[in-house]
Amino acid sequence: MTIAVIYGGTRPDGNTETLTEQAIQGIKVEKIFLRDFHIQSIIDGRHTEEGFQAVDDDYNSIIDRVLPHDILIFSTPIYWYSMSGTMKNFIDRWSQTLRDEKYADFKKQMSQKKAFVIAVGGDDPTIKGLPMIQQFQHIFDFMGISFEGYILGEGNKPGDILNDKNALFAANQLQKGFIN
Amino acid sequence: MTIAVIYGGTRPDGNTETLTEQAIQGIKVEKIFLRDFHIQSIIDGRHTEEGFQAVDDDYNSIIDRVLPHDILIFSTPIYWYSMSGTMKNFIDRWSQTLRDEKYADFKKQMSQKKAFVIAVGGDDPTIKGLPMIQQFQHIFDFMGISFEGYILGEGNKPGDILNDKNALFAANQLQKGFIN
Amino acid sequence: MTIAVIYGGTRPDGNTETLTEQAIQGIKVEKIFLRDFHIQSIIDGRHTEEGFQAVDDDYNSIIDRVLPHDILIFSTPIYWYSMSGTMKNFIDRWSQTLRDEKYADFKKQMSQKKAFVIAVGGDDPTIKGLPMIQQFQHIFDFMGISFEGYILGEGNKPGDILNDKNALFAANQLQKGFIN
Amino acid sequence: MTIAVIYGGTRPDGNTETLTEQAIQGIKVEKIFLRDFHIQSIIDGRHTEEGFQAVDDDYNSIIDRVLPHDILIFSTPIYWYSMSGTMKNFIDRWSQTLRDEKYADFKKQMSQKKAFVIAVGGDDPTIKGLPMIQQFQHIFDFMGISFEGYILGEGNKPGDILNDKNALFAANQLQKGFIN
Repeated sequence: MTIAVIYGGTRPDGNTETLTEQAIQGIKVEKIFLRDFHIQSIIDGRHTEEGFQAVDDDYNSIIDRVLPHDILIFSTPIYWYSMSGTMKNFIDRWSQTLRDEKYADFKKQMSQKKAFVIAVGGDDPTIKGLPMIQQFQHIFDFMGISFEGYILGEGNKPGDILNDKNALFAANQLQKGFIN
Repeated sequence: MTIAVIYGGTRPDGNTETLTEQAIQGIKVEKIFLRDFHIQSIIDGRHTEEGFQAVDDDYNSIIDRVLPHDILIFSTPIYWYSMSGTMKNFIDRWSQTLRDEKYADFKKQMSQKKAFVIAVGGDDPTIKGLPMIQQFQHIFDFMGISFEGYILGEGNKPGDILNDKNALFAANQLQKGFIN
Repeated sequence: MTIAVIYGGTRPDGNTETLTEQAIQGIKVEKIFLRDFHIQSIIDGRHTEEGFQAVDDDYNSIIDRVLPHDILIFSTPIYWYSMSGTMKNFIDRWSQTLRDEKYADFKKQMSQKKAFVIAVGGDDPTIKGLPMIQQFQHIFDFMGISFEGYILGEGNKPGDILNDKNALFAANQLQKGFIN
Repeated sequence: MTIAVIYGGTRPDGNTETLTEQAIQGIKVEKIFLRDFHIQSIIDGRHTEEGFQAVDDDYNSIIDRVLPHDILIFSTPIYWYSMSGTMKNFIDRWSQTLRDEKYADFKKQMSQKKAFVIAVGGDDPTIKGLPMIQQFQHIFDFMGISFEGYILGEGNKPGDILNDKNALFAANQLQKGFIN
């Protein structure tokens, strides 16, 4: 069982990363900071004659790093009550990979994975972040990914998350589950 | 009362545009196709010493086109059960504008607007698109924008939306409201 | 294809009934007004030695009227952002029927049905009624019922619903679908 | 600061009660088991000439016990992805109290309270229980009640909840907050 963490935050050492760190401490994981890569927005080519066009960016290299792992942690700050646009752009591109001959097994491979979501927001995340959780459920359902759990933490200023005892406890429980 | 339509789709003449066209036929509107512009993902600078850094892209020019209008129509295909990453990136950047001295009145100006959402999806949009509607509600609530209504249409292949009688009717009702 | 309408309202000729009437005009349907019957709240007997106890009320007779039909319309006013307690009590009792030898095929029979929800509320129903729709989706998913569509109408005082053009149109579309 | 716990469960010593017990251990609270009382479904009398009619049941006596307290804990098993019909019937009746001269200050008094929700379900409650949480938010918003937090626990058979470490921790945190 190996883990990839896909980070959607745009600020180093943000609260979401801090909370995620609790969940993976002492565990070797593949860390993918989406902000370090160039990912184009999808151009919907499903209904054009030419179909999707090859895109010259880092997206495929990220997919290559994600696919070998059994567990995916989507770690995103809550921006405007949803995942960051950076993470959304990444997921939007899955529509292209689903039609990419080079990744003919993409859906099948993804369907064998387990997913967790860790997200921190500053404006009542345990209420206003719920639609985002429902969206992740729909996304995972579509791909056949098993949605194993999520943590919604509260924080705004750096370090705030350390005051959210429930979120920290849940992250530690996650970590215990990973090492057992 | 003037209208700006903010399009989040990445495919010309997609179903969402077709449906939106029903709602604005015969009305002079400002059409903003986000896909035609370069909009960087936000870099969260809220908690750095330097704060947000000026970004050399088209984002501000879009805000300048949006602000004069009274009614905003957010017109987005449903990608992965939410607005497109393209539109999300645009909205994420509002966090920067909220702290931009050049737009000191941004929130106040936005709070005087009315908003509509028009969205088309292929996978059970009237159910699986609901979390997105709830997110728009939260976004508009935060800004003080009045959320006046939404239309969720169903369509996948080009032209599909023309079979969604309820969505077309609702779009026509919207149009009647605009011209009266 | 025969239709049963299960009414959860407590007021004769309320807005929800008026809207529902649009959807079934000219069609012979089985009308079940839950308010006319005595339905006890469920007593959870799943984990007691004796199990569920026979209840002396009208509930089973309603189930007997529901089961023969192919299409179920759940027609409920939105009370406090959800179905009426009257309708909730009725659905809660399904847990008992699922364990009732007299209805050994209950889940199987229900799973062959199609369901619609028609609901009218006075406080922003197309937004604040959405969690109720999601709950109906979960309920129907559990039973294997196909959720074919819903209409959320707005109204408070008697007759208000006649001003909700979108809801009336959608109800008429439903009716056309039923008679074709 | 005094606390009333309003129990919606129909089974003594169910998982929801066990979890709630963690949150109130060592604290004197007013326990109201709705199942022990006779509460009629509401008869919507808002638009009749006579208005709401006096109901001969235990409802008002429960309101009398609720009103003196500062904190309300709504403790309900998740039946069919929502609060129990028993609890829903109780809340539905608030519509009558809002128009009852004997309780002219009902909304004002309620608006000064803080509320918590504790709910346990057996079918993926942290996902499928989310619409119920959103409904409680709408209910509390309408009344002006401050929604201070919720716990969604997982359990089916008696005692199951003791395996939900996150829920137990959150309940203990709640308890610490109450005694400080």
